[in-house]
Amino acid sequence: MKISIERGTLLKAVSQAQSVVERRNTIPILANVLIETQGDGVSFRATDLDIEVIDRAPAQVERAGATTVSATMLHEIVRKLPDGALVGLSEDAASGRLVVTAGRSNFSLATLPREDFPVMATSEYATSFRANAQVLRRLFDKAKFAISTEETRYYLNGVYMHVATADDGPVLRCVATDGHRLARIDAPLPDGAQGMAGIIVPRKTVGELRKLLDDDDIEITVSVSETKVRFATPSITMTSKVIDGTFPDYTRVIPQQNTRRLEVDASDFAKAVDRVATVSSERSRAVKLSMEDDRLVLSVNAPDSGAAEEELAVAYADEKLEIGFNAKYLLEIASQVDRENAVFLFNSSGDPTLMREGDDASAVYVVMPMRV
Amino acid sequence: MKISIERGTLLKAVSQAQSVVERRNTIPILANVLIETQGDGVSFRATDLDIEVIDRAPAQVERAGATTVSATMLHEIVRKLPDGALVGLSEDAASGRLVVTAGRSNFSLATLPREDFPVMATSEYATSFRANAQVLRRLFDKAKFAISTEETRYYLNGVYMHVATADDGPVLRCVATDGHRLARIDAPLPDGAQGMAGIIVPRKTVGELRKLLDDDDIEITVSVSETKVRFATPSITMTSKVIDGTFPDYTRVIPQQNTRRLEVDASDFAKAVDRVATVSSERSRAVKLSMEDDRLVLSVNAPDSGAAEEELAVAYADEKLEIGFNAKYLLEIASQVDRENAVFLFNSSGDPTLMREGDDASAVYVVMPMRV
Repeated sequence: MKISIERGTLLKAVSQAQSVVERRNTIPILANVLIETQGDGVSFRATDLDIEVIDRAPAQVERAGATTVSATMLHEIVRKLPDGALVGLSEDAASGRLVVTAGRSNFSLATLPREDFPVMATSEYATSFRANAQVLRRLFDKAKFAISTEETRYYLNGVYMHVATADDGPVLRCVATDGHRLARIDAPLPDGAQGMAGIIVPRKTVGELRKLLDDDDIEITVSVSETKVRFATPSITMTSKVIDGTFPDYTRVIPQQNTRRLEVDASDFAKAVDRVATVSSERSRAVKLSMEDDRLVLSVNAPDSGAAEEELAVAYADEKLEIGFNAKYLLEIASQVDRENAVFLFNSSGDPTLMREGDDASAVYVVMPMRV
Repeated sequence: MKISIERGTLLKAVSQAQSVVERRNTIPILANVLIETQGDGVSFRATDLDIEVIDRAPAQVERAGATTVSATMLHEIVRKLPDGALVGLSEDAASGRLVVTAGRSNFSLATLPREDFPVMATSEYATSFRANAQVLRRLFDKAKFAISTEETRYYLNGVYMHVATADDGPVLRCVATDGHRLARIDAPLPDGAQGMAGIIVPRKTVGELRKLLDDDDIEITVSVSETKVRFATPSITMTSKVIDGTFPDYTRVIPQQNTRRLEVDASDFAKAVDRVATVSSERSRAVKLSMEDDRLVLSVNAPDSGAAEEELAVAYADEKLEIGFNAKYLLEIASQVDRENAVFLFNSSGDPTLMREGDDASAVYVVMPMRV
């Protein structure tokens, strides 16, 4: 193999690939990236056996071939090379090393044979559809904070993407929950997504996927099989196993009968929650909300360290209510609101509370109260 | 006690004080800041028993008094209050709490009696002089990277500040070393510093001192006793114990006879060192410098992972030389050079190497070679 490639192009391709590589590996080849010429370009492939990323980049190919080198080391080297440099990558048959050249810099890196590089089994993708990057970003970004980290509840360690029926018809829906809070985000159903089997996209995949979605205008091809999901842009293909489990029936958790309505500026609310929570100890971060007559009082009482109280002008016309929440959960859902006021719908102080952004029903959050 | 104080003023004073407080404390009062009215102002005092910081700030004092509250909690609260807020601090005699108010926020914080707050023993300061913040910043900033972290060599865990005689007369000098590298920085001797006993300023004090020196124009009053050093600005007084030990005779370590002279652009050099060091394993980060005929080749050979080489155009007219260094040490001393080229003076590949900035003898660095 012998190729030349522009430093910026190389950096982008290697960055995406190396980020999938796990830092602590017992299998040496998994620390490597597979570099492979492909016609007029080159591909960079990395995997942790659960996720596989392939980045394709244009390059000047002088001699076709393939090899694998340490992903982090190649990434570090390219990152430190001066901007605009032309980078040469060539295999030295005698030493079995990959020679990286740029200007007066010269590196030779240990390789492992490409034959040892694990290739993910192919899958029959029953469903395939195209979605705008912005749409997918919203679906996953707004849901991911609620993903459970409890390993014993592995079926909650991801975002459940499926087809559902909302009030105005079928939607593509992402749901995540850890039992304490839940996020349910809808988007118009893309053509071709009808009949898709629901899949649980693992937490790490959600994180890696995020890097594919930075460019608003890009169309992502999403392919779904029973065991895998694939997200593809023109230059990057990311394939991931899905979580082999059944996502619980979340619909029962979403309250339908909550009638007490609180409307509040989401940013003011979040800042006030953050302030009053300062006095509470790490363990029991409980914030009490007391509302009556367009007035909300947030309060925290931590006997050891102190107490805090803050009043906010809000819209609340229902019966007086006192209810407690974990401060972290309140902050997290309040920070999901980007345009409108946060609207909370309560039932009693012991029942799950619903939050949405203004009157938009396409993003709904549920949070369990805690006794205060 | 009852006072009002502008949020920005309060934040600045509390920030400086709380940064001295150790995060993990077995003595509860040491987690607190002592707030004390003083005429038309208020002072904030914090200590870890080795360093004591007193910040004074203007405030509207309605009722004089003093109390202590958690430094980090007060700092967190003030940080989260809106900019421009007027903050009230008042002691509630009935509950024994400090009430913090701002707008519609209200906090009451647990206090500990001011009588329990440890006050540092006063000291007779034999020497006292004034120095510009910029001058002190340079002395400590350029020396501190060489401070040893080996606790058994406690007398090296700080910067040795003393009066010395340089080629053109007496100077105020800061020296730090960990046995592998050394920094020796000189400044013109301030009036009143003559006869000062040499002191070892501990690492943490050097770090805290840095925050007092951000404002270029400020004059710092430095007072030195046998056991303490005090740095004072008009609003902040920081008193620190000095390390009770004898700093070794560093002059023997500074080579006088090194004649092989390498001159190199410090930034290009640092970047090249950083690049070639990428291929080496964490443990033995050795970089080899080979120079001959205005040519410097930096190389690293790490059998397991690879090799790297980079050539730089330099000024070198002496006999051919090969010498190895720890990459981290080379990077650290190269990054001390701010204006000029780095000038290295070598003897042989086994002898300590000297570096300075251009022909400026007021900042001199020594680094031990390593076998490559």
